[in-house]
Amino acid sequence: MLEQLKEEVFKANLELVKHNLVIFTWGNVSAIDRESGLVVIKPSGVEYDVMKASDMVVVDLDGNVVDGNLKPSSDTPTHIELYKAFPEIGGVVHTHSTYATAWAHAGCDIPILGTTQADYFYGDIPCTRDMTAEEIAGAYEKETGTVIVDSFKDKNPMHVPGVIVKNHAPFSWGKDAHDAVHNSVVIEQVAKMNFVALQVNPEATMNKHLTEKHFNRKHGANAYYGQG
Amino acid sequence: MLEQLKEEVFKANLELVKHNLVIFTWGNVSAIDRESGLVVIKPSGVEYDVMKASDMVVVDLDGNVVDGNLKPSSDTPTHIELYKAFPEIGGVVHTHSTYATAWAHAGCDIPILGTTQADYFYGDIPCTRDMTAEEIAGAYEKETGTVIVDSFKDKNPMHVPGVIVKNHAPFSWGKDAHDAVHNSVVIEQVAKMNFVALQVNPEATMNKHLTEKHFNRKHGANAYYGQG
Amino acid sequence: MLEQLKEEVFKANLELVKHNLVIFTWGNVSAIDRESGLVVIKPSGVEYDVMKASDMVVVDLDGNVVDGNLKPSSDTPTHIELYKAFPEIGGVVHTHSTYATAWAHAGCDIPILGTTQADYFYGDIPCTRDMTAEEIAGAYEKETGTVIVDSFKDKNPMHVPGVIVKNHAPFSWGKDAHDAVHNSVVIEQVAKMNFVALQVNPEATMNKHLTEKHFNRKHGANAYYGQG
Amino acid sequence: MLEQLKEEVFKANLELVKHNLVIFTWGNVSAIDRESGLVVIKPSGVEYDVMKASDMVVVDLDGNVVDGNLKPSSDTPTHIELYKAFPEIGGVVHTHSTYATAWAHAGCDIPILGTTQADYFYGDIPCTRDMTAEEIAGAYEKETGTVIVDSFKDKNPMHVPGVIVKNHAPFSWGKDAHDAVHNSVVIEQVAKMNFVALQVNPEATMNKHLTEKHFNRKHGANAYYGQG
Repeated sequence: MLEQLKEEVFKANLELVKHNLVIFTWGNVSAIDRESGLVVIKPSGVEYDVMKASDMVVVDLDGNVVDGNLKPSSDTPTHIELYKAFPEIGGVVHTHSTYATAWAHAGCDIPILGTTQADYFYGDIPCTRDMTAEEIAGAYEKETGTVIVDSFKDKNPMHVPGVIVKNHAPFSWGKDAHDAVHNSVVIEQVAKMNFVALQVNPEATMNKHLTEKHFNRKHGANAYYGQG
Repeated sequence: MLEQLKEEVFKANLELVKHNLVIFTWGNVSAIDRESGLVVIKPSGVEYDVMKASDMVVVDLDGNVVDGNLKPSSDTPTHIELYKAFPEIGGVVHTHSTYATAWAHAGCDIPILGTTQADYFYGDIPCTRDMTAEEIAGAYEKETGTVIVDSFKDKNPMHVPGVIVKNHAPFSWGKDAHDAVHNSVVIEQVAKMNFVALQVNPEATMNKHLTEKHFNRKHGANAYYGQG
Repeated sequence: MLEQLKEEVFKANLELVKHNLVIFTWGNVSAIDRESGLVVIKPSGVEYDVMKASDMVVVDLDGNVVDGNLKPSSDTPTHIELYKAFPEIGGVVHTHSTYATAWAHAGCDIPILGTTQADYFYGDIPCTRDMTAEEIAGAYEKETGTVIVDSFKDKNPMHVPGVIVKNHAPFSWGKDAHDAVHNSVVIEQVAKMNFVALQVNPEATMNKHLTEKHFNRKHGANAYYGQG
Repeated sequence: MLEQLKEEVFKANLELVKHNLVIFTWGNVSAIDRESGLVVIKPSGVEYDVMKASDMVVVDLDGNVVDGNLKPSSDTPTHIELYKAFPEIGGVVHTHSTYATAWAHAGCDIPILGTTQADYFYGDIPCTRDMTAEEIAGAYEKETGTVIVDSFKDKNPMHVPGVIVKNHAPFSWGKDAHDAVHNSVVIEQVAKMNFVALQVNPEATMNKHLTEKHFNRKHGANAYYGQG
């Protein structure tokens, strides 16, 4: 079932290792098949160096396992909430990458200060609000998805393809699993650069025109970056 | 004598190298066989790349060498104090890993600011009190164990499996040597993330409910992380 | 056409990878053949690990492609402005290297604080002024070259072989592509060292005599560094 | 001539690369044969990956080349001053390692805050005074040695085996070339750890008793660390 998507999700999980975004099993990638509404996701707590494509788990949008011998990632309900709320996305990534997670500990939006970020994000990378005691005690992983979605009431998730969950870590997404991993690399890199930048100059800001130029250079009808 | 435990301790010492936690010979791992009360530990000052499993030294809980041709780690008396005071632990690790040691230089507890820490530590990672002139001049390595134990009067060492020794470096422990190494990786990673987080936002804090949720998700009767 | 220069530019692009100055396709190197006035440059958005020397694109100083099957780097007009304004340079490099880009986010000149910088730069590494809304909306990549050139009205570009483009990232140059890469490594390294230095001592400065000594030790008529 | 010492110096130079202390040719190691008063040193500006043991240059204590086809390191007069002033040392190392050089840019002593430093340094790692315009314009590299020696009027160079040259970079030494490299690794590591420590707690200090205990544990008549 969904063998090709399992292969893609498996490979995207290994890309996290290649880009130094994960320690131990602290990360997971999923992708959705929009026709069937089924999600392929990494199994929970399995080490990357023994993981196989066939270990990927298939769940439906109610979180029921429909294929696979292992338990899906404990973060599966978060991924599902994102797929439900953001119909254009095809892949989701969660990591505890060092600098992005540090911003989550800080509880701050990553401000847009450079064109590296503007090439992928149309503005700041938001940090979610605090979760309530009820949300934490209840369906915690599902509610983690809810607070993420709350942060995007006034944002296009395809224009801001990632978020910092407060006191937790980043989530990113994209048109597919590979693209979502790409955005998780961008978040980690800008998290590091902006930590340094704000130490050098706490008053740093960026011109809005530059954000628009760079975002539109790579995205939308008049994009002219790359060979496409 | 205790050949399998020697192999485990040897492998756990090499894991320190793999996780970039040691420079030169600045680290050591031990494990205890609770039935016989014997501790297997790395020899003192031996380079990791020439070390063999058969170089591991066996000592009793009075610090007497009962097997092995080399001198045990000079930190052996610290390990022994921990095994005596914390009956549930099976392995102990000491490193001078960069960021955790920096917190030891700073002389500060590593505050809990994120779920990465809460997955393993039920709260802050404590920094020990200053050692007295008498403790330093006396049985220094044994007294290093004493000040660690002093920090755990009101803490369950299985819920807070590590500590920062002030002006020195981290110690960690766990159910076995491998688990203790795992916790030393966690300490180093949160030490780095919280250094960055507190530069970004010196007022950062974390909701107590989140600590409870994450700790209990991985530990205790209702744990649901992983394949277990 | 210009096969040897293509080979040089190709190799210089791979040096960026070797020196950890690029993630994904975020960097490009070019070189100019001053006799013909033709520039060889990396194609746009092509991954370094599949790129071949024959993928290099040849453009004239009006930006017209005169050889090659791929689109040239979207930053080509910036490179061209530099070749036009600085007749002594033979190669240009652009990266989004971590620390230099952080200084671009900060919007600050990298002050000269040590002899590492003085060995290559006769003073601070300047940060460009803000671009105007018109410059950004217009021929943006060409205007990026214009603001760089504006920063060198009172500077010899061979004595200060690089710049930080505000809210963007560094550009460097040199007598050829290899030399320009060398200078991009220097910029990244001093960007990192000065970030740390200014955290340790925000009042740090350097004696002007030391700058002169080191710069002249490696450059000019009385240079005595190396085997030359 | 001095073939074994050339081999030792060659290998020690490569250790700098292995420990990530050098970029390009920014570092050099020498050793002295005290009987003949001859110094073996790395040639100037030669890349580490093409360097051979036979490229090492032999100079006398007046700086005259007595063996070798290449020019010695431009820092040779600094090494010679150290050999003349500190009769117990057998090897000298100079690098531009990242964090130690950042402290040189900051112009600050590296304060002793932890036992990692105390295991090798009996106190702070001093930063030299400013050089005068005359010293810089005159025999600059020799005078660099002079200002280093000035910093050790009240210090035993075998108890404080390294220094930060203000606005330049670290020098270290030891009983031989290998030992001097070891100390250069220690300087870089404590420079990094203390940068972090002082960001976390600008008021950090260390108990003098701890310095004495750790230094004496590894050095002097009653040392008990290692297998010796």
